[in-house]
Amino acid sequence: MRAGVFGATGYIGGELLRYLAVHPAAEVCFATSRGDAGQAISKVYPNLRGLLDAPFVPPDRAGLASSDVVFCALPHNISQEWIPRWVREHPDVRIIDMGGDFRTPDPAGYAEYYGHEHTAPDLLPSFVFGFVEGNRERIRAARYVANPGCFATSLLLALWPLRRAGVLAGPVQAAAVTGSSGSGNKPSGTTHHPERFMNYRAYKALSHQHLLEVKHFIGGEGWDLEFVPHSGPFARGIFLTLFPPRMALAKLARVFREAYGGEPLVDVVDGTPELRLVAGTPRATIGIAGRADRGIVFVAIDNLGKGGPTQGIQNMNLMLGLEETCGLRIPGGFV
Amino acid sequence: MRAGVFGATGYIGGELLRYLAVHPAAEVCFATSRGDAGQAISKVYPNLRGLLDAPFVPPDRAGLASSDVVFCALPHNISQEWIPRWVREHPDVRIIDMGGDFRTPDPAGYAEYYGHEHTAPDLLPSFVFGFVEGNRERIRAARYVANPGCFATSLLLALWPLRRAGVLAGPVQAAAVTGSSGSGNKPSGTTHHPERFMNYRAYKALSHQHLLEVKHFIGGEGWDLEFVPHSGPFARGIFLTLFPPRMALAKLARVFREAYGGEPLVDVVDGTPELRLVAGTPRATIGIAGRADRGIVFVAIDNLGKGGPTQGIQNMNLMLGLEETCGLRIPGGFV
Amino acid sequence: MRAGVFGATGYIGGELLRYLAVHPAAEVCFATSRGDAGQAISKVYPNLRGLLDAPFVPPDRAGLASSDVVFCALPHNISQEWIPRWVREHPDVRIIDMGGDFRTPDPAGYAEYYGHEHTAPDLLPSFVFGFVEGNRERIRAARYVANPGCFATSLLLALWPLRRAGVLAGPVQAAAVTGSSGSGNKPSGTTHHPERFMNYRAYKALSHQHLLEVKHFIGGEGWDLEFVPHSGPFARGIFLTLFPPRMALAKLARVFREAYGGEPLVDVVDGTPELRLVAGTPRATIGIAGRADRGIVFVAIDNLGKGGPTQGIQNMNLMLGLEETCGLRIPGGFV
Amino acid sequence: MRAGVFGATGYIGGELLRYLAVHPAAEVCFATSRGDAGQAISKVYPNLRGLLDAPFVPPDRAGLASSDVVFCALPHNISQEWIPRWVREHPDVRIIDMGGDFRTPDPAGYAEYYGHEHTAPDLLPSFVFGFVEGNRERIRAARYVANPGCFATSLLLALWPLRRAGVLAGPVQAAAVTGSSGSGNKPSGTTHHPERFMNYRAYKALSHQHLLEVKHFIGGEGWDLEFVPHSGPFARGIFLTLFPPRMALAKLARVFREAYGGEPLVDVVDGTPELRLVAGTPRATIGIAGRADRGIVFVAIDNLGKGGPTQGIQNMNLMLGLEETCGLRIPGGFV
Repeated sequence: MRAGVFGATGYIGGELLRYLAVHPAAEVCFATSRGDAGQAISKVYPNLRGLLDAPFVPPDRAGLASSDVVFCALPHNISQEWIPRWVREHPDVRIIDMGGDFRTPDPAGYAEYYGHEHTAPDLLPSFVFGFVEGNRERIRAARYVANPGCFATSLLLALWPLRRAGVLAGPVQAAAVTGSSGSGNKPSGTTHHPERFMNYRAYKALSHQHLLEVKHFIGGEGWDLEFVPHSGPFARGIFLTLFPPRMALAKLARVFREAYGGEPLVDVVDGTPELRLVAGTPRATIGIAGRADRGIVFVAIDNLGKGGPTQGIQNMNLMLGLEETCGLRIPGGFV
Repeated sequence: MRAGVFGATGYIGGELLRYLAVHPAAEVCFATSRGDAGQAISKVYPNLRGLLDAPFVPPDRAGLASSDVVFCALPHNISQEWIPRWVREHPDVRIIDMGGDFRTPDPAGYAEYYGHEHTAPDLLPSFVFGFVEGNRERIRAARYVANPGCFATSLLLALWPLRRAGVLAGPVQAAAVTGSSGSGNKPSGTTHHPERFMNYRAYKALSHQHLLEVKHFIGGEGWDLEFVPHSGPFARGIFLTLFPPRMALAKLARVFREAYGGEPLVDVVDGTPELRLVAGTPRATIGIAGRADRGIVFVAIDNLGKGGPTQGIQNMNLMLGLEETCGLRIPGGFV
Repeated sequence: MRAGVFGATGYIGGELLRYLAVHPAAEVCFATSRGDAGQAISKVYPNLRGLLDAPFVPPDRAGLASSDVVFCALPHNISQEWIPRWVREHPDVRIIDMGGDFRTPDPAGYAEYYGHEHTAPDLLPSFVFGFVEGNRERIRAARYVANPGCFATSLLLALWPLRRAGVLAGPVQAAAVTGSSGSGNKPSGTTHHPERFMNYRAYKALSHQHLLEVKHFIGGEGWDLEFVPHSGPFARGIFLTLFPPRMALAKLARVFREAYGGEPLVDVVDGTPELRLVAGTPRATIGIAGRADRGIVFVAIDNLGKGGPTQGIQNMNLMLGLEETCGLRIPGGFV
Repeated sequence: MRAGVFGATGYIGGELLRYLAVHPAAEVCFATSRGDAGQAISKVYPNLRGLLDAPFVPPDRAGLASSDVVFCALPHNISQEWIPRWVREHPDVRIIDMGGDFRTPDPAGYAEYYGHEHTAPDLLPSFVFGFVEGNRERIRAARYVANPGCFATSLLLALWPLRRAGVLAGPVQAAAVTGSSGSGNKPSGTTHHPERFMNYRAYKALSHQHLLEVKHFIGGEGWDLEFVPHSGPFARGIFLTLFPPRMALAKLARVFREAYGGEPLVDVVDGTPELRLVAGTPRATIGIAGRADRGIVFVAIDNLGKGGPTQGIQNMNLMLGLEETCGLRIPGGFV
């Protein structure tokens, strides 16, 4: 199978290339970059030396016609400019959008959370939401998939079993912390090393744009999500702490084990996850802890793994009829 | 004024020495250590070279008689073995206990949270709780003060204004993260650098022992605290995120500004605190953020500053009739 | 092929298991642990969940008879107690010792650097030194291989091309820094997170035990190595800066490109390596920089990769007649 | 005494403000900023809240006339545009330049290392080099002082005692690592957190601009300095490892103890310094270690302390006739 990557010099694009470079059933047929077009991929990504030495191509020279699937790792708001053309000119090519442009069919919600009008609202209903554990069958049949956001993935992993079990009600509080790679590869004040090192801060309290896709996918009434994201002094990973509706610890654990018992990339443990054990991997660990009469849910993922690129590879595998974990059975380190 | 420190080779004892070494109105009259007795203080603490070069003394050779105040920085459960003797033999000497043994008058609560019977329950009522911003006048008049715990301080800073304003009701959710120095100077698995570096994990969910002193000091009925502590990959500082009872952001900000408007060491800001700006300092920063109809409270302190040693110095200053911030007006770095 | 691991709960043993778990041509036939015998491997190493769920066995129950190769990841000085028995009872089983016991045929040097007499000196000549790039053909034919140490590997990568080109002469200065995982999994003062975080320090200046194996393997006369190791505030990786004999930058670069031009796991670049790009990988990057008339050599490796476990896998592959990089073509992340 | 700071929003300017804010004998009379003019200093530097709440002023509104001393913390190449005007219009005001423009009287050297012609070469001879331990008496009498660079300070601390003792000869190799704050407050690729976190790299091997001032101040013939700077994954501090001319360890230690025996801010220890113990402080620690017949020199300083701002305060104190350590006796933390 042949996979192309648009926006391949961003961190999400780069991590897609990392997994595609050693994927047993797919190969990279192109990777686009404006600024680095003509440069060898492995010049920009020395970690891929010997694996991907072909040059980046400019986005308008991408070989869509000979691709089975393309990943769009362009920035928010840019995807919606490019994707309509691809759909029009190459209707058979599968598309997985890694950004926020096509995650709900709700253009008004988009405008509210992303701050501008959607320019391709007609395409919104064509996209299937790529939260694998909760939407697998629809993804398998999809041509166009919108991969969930990083914080969204952690929230979905915590909320979907509750909704599935019919126990989601009332306000749910959630606090999560992300590594600096979640902000992308453009240097800025909040990712300036002297000021990020040993810092910890909150941002977008109750107003993060991932709330849109989470609330829409989980759906239902009578519950609300109060979510506060934080920035932590590490490069990769998200750790989420969620206060679910009050229920016995044993019941809570049962809800999660039932939801994820057969999942190949989601582990449910008693107690806490350890972030370092999922960083750099495609896996999620969910922990259940608390008092006997009150359970808490923890989720640990890599924002550049399950929270993005490797979930994208899961989606690709499903869409192409491959084994879902193909190319993803790579263990991380213990330290 | 003359101040002694018991248990001076732990991190809390060491940080007390750091501030006492340059305190304008107090001097260190002894610092105890079993293992390092006879060694120069500045041999163990090279950061105090030229400032405290006298030797550590063994605890049973401490010059209590000539002290105005002593800090007890012995481990939990050990303080209660030593303090009764000091009270008996030197009833005039002021004592500030830095550990958890005397923070509430409730021996049953102690047994529940600390896992063994209190061996000096009669002394419990003699101690005043040293949460300065909420108990200043009683501390001023006290002979014996129990300094709050590190997580407790962050929780008290967030809850006390709510209680004071009469708006504390229902369940309150709180998640906080601490640096590794909070675990003390004994190497262990959870502070082993290869496994702490870039890790993040929860522990003691809903069961941390500081809940005891927080619930007791705040008091009242009809509210509950659901608190989950976490371990972060940095050395110093605590960042707390607390979901208070639902109220308008503006009202919440008003509650905190009214409570802390005149406080010399507590700053209230719109938006998030930055942990690095309080690390290594005696200050607390409280941030208020969220949606117009729903506010969130953030607290940033140093676990070895406001969350312990420098709050201890505040208590000492008050007990000795000195200006409260004497020796504490030392700014931290911006990076 | 069937591979066993003795001492599998240390970091080196754990990383061997990580690579063996997904090795296309080898499988783990046993992993020993005294303390964790009976526990599932993936209970101790959650990163291997679903890949290695069999239990650890006690070392005296290891199935040597049915193994093609065993790795000995026991601590220094312990290997020499166990290995003679394996050699005696299972003379056909290949052994790769990961520790320092069998790296030179020089028992006097061992006693000097390791501080005690070698208890199996007769076996020393049976071991081939496992520095792959400089000893490949002997390794291919070996039954017993001693894998180089982590710092030793970085030094060998820098010195061997100089020796090979006949330009090694005079004193050579070298400074290197290692991550904390190099100290192993036992918590200690120098790996206590609060004291390692944001610290940097030197140790064993000019007296590190890896000097023994480096000087012996490189051999020759008229040159000397002045090596100073340092501890850095990160978990994985070694960065070496070496001042070679004075020669033109272009000549120095040529020496290294000629030595490593065809190597699959060693990259030679102009300028500096970036440590993060080799951390967590089996690769080494060598950088050449300086002034036109004076070149400097830099080496970046992972102490738990090329500096140990993955070099061990290279050795295994060679000894078993497999492709040398089998199981090692796994790219690291860019961040 | 009244001190002004030009370029006060950079890290060096900010740290000067931090120390001046609590200096017992000096007060900040102005702090300039183009971008933040009109903003309260403590708005930009929350760590100075309650200490410096006056606004920044634009540089052309700075009250030089009423200043006793001004610090110039403007960027390289910009100082030489401003300082001539100050000298002309306010000849009595003392100036301490924190940048590289006036550190040697050698305009040709400047052009070579800084890449452009010096625009105020006539002023170069008016400046005294502010390496306090080696130039104290000239500084005391100076009107204009050029504060040494951060790496330069570490190198000077290691080389000056050797030169003073007449034992500096031949090539001297030095490798040093700096924290990210050394790159200033402008975000860039090499200080982008995801790429700096857990990274280590070399740069400007043998060509760093601080070589100019070090070679000039140390002077003499028959010796050379081969210096390689590195970037480390921490925010503050420099650790230098220097291979001096070969001499016995005991002799080397004597050379350094004789040079720094009476120094208030330089400690000489057997063994290694610990970087964390000088980070955030005005102190330097020099360690001597190695074999009996061969010593190595280590220097640890804070690039924003002894390597810059606090050395600037030392210079100010000397120039103003104050006690040299006035305002600098603030101990750092142990962790």
